[in-house]
Amino acid sequence: MSSVHLHNSERLDDLLTHNLKIIQSDEVFSFSLDAVLLARFCSVPVRGKMIDLCTGNGVIPLLLTTRTKASITAIEIQERLADMARRNVQLNGLEDRVQIVHGDIKIALDLFGHGAFDALTVNPPYLPVPNGEQNTNEHFAAARHEIYCTLEDVIRISSRLVKSGGKVAMVHRPSRLVDIMTLMRQYRLEPKRVRFVHPRQDEEANMVLIEALRDGKPEVRMLPPLIVYTKGIEYSQELMDVYYGGKSSL
Amino acid sequence: MSSVHLHNSERLDDLLTHNLKIIQSDEVFSFSLDAVLLARFCSVPVRGKMIDLCTGNGVIPLLLTTRTKASITAIEIQERLADMARRNVQLNGLEDRVQIVHGDIKIALDLFGHGAFDALTVNPPYLPVPNGEQNTNEHFAAARHEIYCTLEDVIRISSRLVKSGGKVAMVHRPSRLVDIMTLMRQYRLEPKRVRFVHPRQDEEANMVLIEALRDGKPEVRMLPPLIVYTKGIEYSQELMDVYYGGKSSL
Repeated sequence: MSSVHLHNSERLDDLLTHNLKIIQSDEVFSFSLDAVLLARFCSVPVRGKMIDLCTGNGVIPLLLTTRTKASITAIEIQERLADMARRNVQLNGLEDRVQIVHGDIKIALDLFGHGAFDALTVNPPYLPVPNGEQNTNEHFAAARHEIYCTLEDVIRISSRLVKSGGKVAMVHRPSRLVDIMTLMRQYRLEPKRVRFVHPRQDEEANMVLIEALRDGKPEVRMLPPLIVYTKGIEYSQELMDVYYGGKSSL
Repeated sequence: MSSVHLHNSERLDDLLTHNLKIIQSDEVFSFSLDAVLLARFCSVPVRGKMIDLCTGNGVIPLLLTTRTKASITAIEIQERLADMARRNVQLNGLEDRVQIVHGDIKIALDLFGHGAFDALTVNPPYLPVPNGEQNTNEHFAAARHEIYCTLEDVIRISSRLVKSGGKVAMVHRPSRLVDIMTLMRQYRLEPKRVRFVHPRQDEEANMVLIEALRDGKPEVRMLPPLIVYTKGIEYSQELMDVYYGGKSSL
């Protein structure tokens, strides 16, 4: 493991699998369950090229290296987060497998060209730009609100970045599912696998994992529900497996 | 309870709630779990007017009478089934609350006018018209394949039959969910509540219940999964409640 510099407010956490470590910061960005589940849920090519949009501190590409030998590009618009992601790659000695790019996803097509990737992951901002108050922390605001890119931007660009037959996997709020499905179809990404995450079995879903196939035929599979807690705040066996037990895919 | 004539091949079954009885026939039509769940899932107005499309032997309107005082119209294209549905209404003494119409849903707008109903239910044929072989029994074929009406027909007509703010509830196969959601939005029906039915907790969904609001705002709720069997072929508590325990809504 390489040594890297920790900035003010940053801490070093354990990713709990394959001895991966990650720099986080409560002031700027720390990864959540959403990212971990997406990195397990998405289909990965054995080799080839993957890209992760809105990568934050790079947690998704780090986790993807445990599942695939593909070369992974990750793009982040906030300079401070892109720098954190780059140090996370160094920290884990993954410079030859993961490349972090600082920039807007809107320039990704210019940088990489149409159809450049076999698979794509994205954990985009979930919330529309608020009319009034928003998170006053600019870093959280950009990660959570559609300030730099709307859902339509994300889906349009994702569709163009993958080749025909390529896969796009996204995690989002279930309340946006109709928007996601109609936009995906509009941009020739056909949803093929969907998995809802429910905090408890008798509660509504608060997260949706969805994977689409570029130029795929209509027909979608609704996978078993993923229940996070069995009772109270005790993680379900499946969640424990995802975090600790080396369950590599959902 | 009135006495009605049973035709050849028909039998009298118990609907297991409110002492309702129902005529069925394995040669022509017998209701399934789909219809029972839809009749429990849909929102009902306290009074007002409801309509059930593709009603078959009328199982959904019969069950709806246990939840609402609304006047219920039900429409069925197959004469033999419409006749069976009419006898089911008589059998249960519900002639003043349920009206069975024999006809194509495409003429429903002429018969009833735009925006005539507060709420609508539909358990449409699930399968596209097959290229080659289909069910050789014409009654089953019409109930199962999109011979008389496509999914788009069903959604377009449903949208026009309900008033602004009216509700349309449908049961279908999860594999068609992207089609359903995009068509609903196209015809100004905004999906608001979705519930997936899984045979067992660790299995994919094989049924979806979806309710849309005419002219509603985008934002959909994904309700808790409905699990049919707990282990082996033992019904889950929730299913038992639906069938026997008087659980009137899902």
